[in-house]
Amino acid sequence: MSLLVVGSVALDTLETPSGRADDAVGGAATYFAYAASFFTPVRMVGAIGDDFPAEVLSDLEGRGVDVSGVEKRAGTTLRWSGRYHEELNVRDTLHLDLGVFGDFQPSIPDSYRDSEYAFLANIDPALQARVLDQLEGPRLIGCDTMNHWIQESRSVLDGLLKRVDMLIVNDEEAELLTGDRNMVKAAAKILDSGPKSVLIKRGEYGVIDFSPGNVFAVPAYPLEEVRDPTGAGDCFAAGVMGELARSGDLSPAGLRRAIVYGSVMGSFVVEDFGPKRLQSLTREMIDERYRQFVALTDIPR
Amino acid sequence: MSLLVVGSVALDTLETPSGRADDAVGGAATYFAYAASFFTPVRMVGAIGDDFPAEVLSDLEGRGVDVSGVEKRAGTTLRWSGRYHEELNVRDTLHLDLGVFGDFQPSIPDSYRDSEYAFLANIDPALQARVLDQLEGPRLIGCDTMNHWIQESRSVLDGLLKRVDMLIVNDEEAELLTGDRNMVKAAAKILDSGPKSVLIKRGEYGVIDFSPGNVFAVPAYPLEEVRDPTGAGDCFAAGVMGELARSGDLSPAGLRRAIVYGSVMGSFVVEDFGPKRLQSLTREMIDERYRQFVALTDIPR
Repeated sequence: MSLLVVGSVALDTLETPSGRADDAVGGAATYFAYAASFFTPVRMVGAIGDDFPAEVLSDLEGRGVDVSGVEKRAGTTLRWSGRYHEELNVRDTLHLDLGVFGDFQPSIPDSYRDSEYAFLANIDPALQARVLDQLEGPRLIGCDTMNHWIQESRSVLDGLLKRVDMLIVNDEEAELLTGDRNMVKAAAKILDSGPKSVLIKRGEYGVIDFSPGNVFAVPAYPLEEVRDPTGAGDCFAAGVMGELARSGDLSPAGLRRAIVYGSVMGSFVVEDFGPKRLQSLTREMIDERYRQFVALTDIPR
Repeated sequence: MSLLVVGSVALDTLETPSGRADDAVGGAATYFAYAASFFTPVRMVGAIGDDFPAEVLSDLEGRGVDVSGVEKRAGTTLRWSGRYHEELNVRDTLHLDLGVFGDFQPSIPDSYRDSEYAFLANIDPALQARVLDQLEGPRLIGCDTMNHWIQESRSVLDGLLKRVDMLIVNDEEAELLTGDRNMVKAAAKILDSGPKSVLIKRGEYGVIDFSPGNVFAVPAYPLEEVRDPTGAGDCFAAGVMGELARSGDLSPAGLRRAIVYGSVMGSFVVEDFGPKRLQSLTREMIDERYRQFVALTDIPR
């Protein structure tokens, strides 16, 4: 089933303890589109400047991503450069130039309005809400956000949360949103505020999902080297939403399967810089790693 | 099967964000004995002073713990008082009085020498080695250690590691031991240094076990409140060693089952101060929580 993603498209310069990449394709919508395309047709909304490489759009199109919603505007693409610490969950922004993303107003093409699954990547919650206004009632809406919006746009965000089905945040964001360091309590408050599920990302420790009456924890896949953590969260969301859109199975088991596929996609993308690892991935490798997650976590009855 | 534990016995004064306990029974051997007694007969070695409450020893005896190896000496029991931060993995030692533990020389009673399973709780590795010298070749030896010994007694510890089957440490200790922040690399080095398995404790994120060709990760049980983290690691080790001693099953599946029982015991003890929660626990509650771990982690095939 059709899966819409709205979010940033960027050119990133990345420094990690493993090396460096200049002008790597990035942005939440880009990572999401690459990763979700292994599961279902993707419809992408974002903004790029004159400097964005045309071959990336062609590559995405070749993977079943509809890029007609990616608006090309005069100016430069969002550019971010960042440096990760030895502890990879800490990073410094060295440089940020919003470019055409600065006054991005997501406009949903008519052909996208019937999207049954939608993911609102991390942008201003006012814009996320405007995306929902343009859709004909999707079956499932997933949503990301970040510290900045939690602190600066709280009431708009609260309004948005009442309209989304699944919130995907990290533990720090969950704490900031609720004032609770304990994730069981934080999740209960988030579920009270609107979403039917909250998926809390814990970096190298995996993910925990809280839905009423159903808690599901998945450890992260143990990797010998994480070369570049950029995009891990977006690829996680893409695996979750992509598998749900593919299967249409929103049952607890269907959601669990989707969360593991999300973990699989997050584990792959960090193996190389930017979305490079996704570009060499096959569906067979994805399913093989799914089986490795089963083996990693299997408890004898 | 008989399970020997050698370690500290203490009286702790504990302050956590949830409250306070004065002169709570503590020490690694005590926590271990309480928790392991649900699985198998336990033989306990430690030292206590005149001030140690006799009813605790009787309580342990009533639970199938042989306390004839707990040496009563003139003087005071090891006393520790500590304060935990809001982030419960950080604690300050407010006061420490080693008492009779200061020159503790573990002496293994003749009746303990045939112990088939042995756990060396965190004490000087020279003393841990001397315990092994007094045993008639146990089937499985588990071992804990801490930063202090890794830094101050490295060569003795290295010698000891060649003699143990299973090392149980936290992620910080694994990093200190190997210089690797990445747990896959750290575990590989530890397995090269002697143990056949290394179980790495990650606090609120659970445990990951590395054995050659077998990696197993278990998330922590999501608790709404952790009242007192003291003893969690010892009770984890007790569940692991206790279940292995009970079943005698050292296969990968047997080890997985044991690690989950360890996680179960660790999750219970933190629900109240000191070993209090263990004192009200039943075997049925333990098995029920084991099933909850299965439900928490179950991935649809």
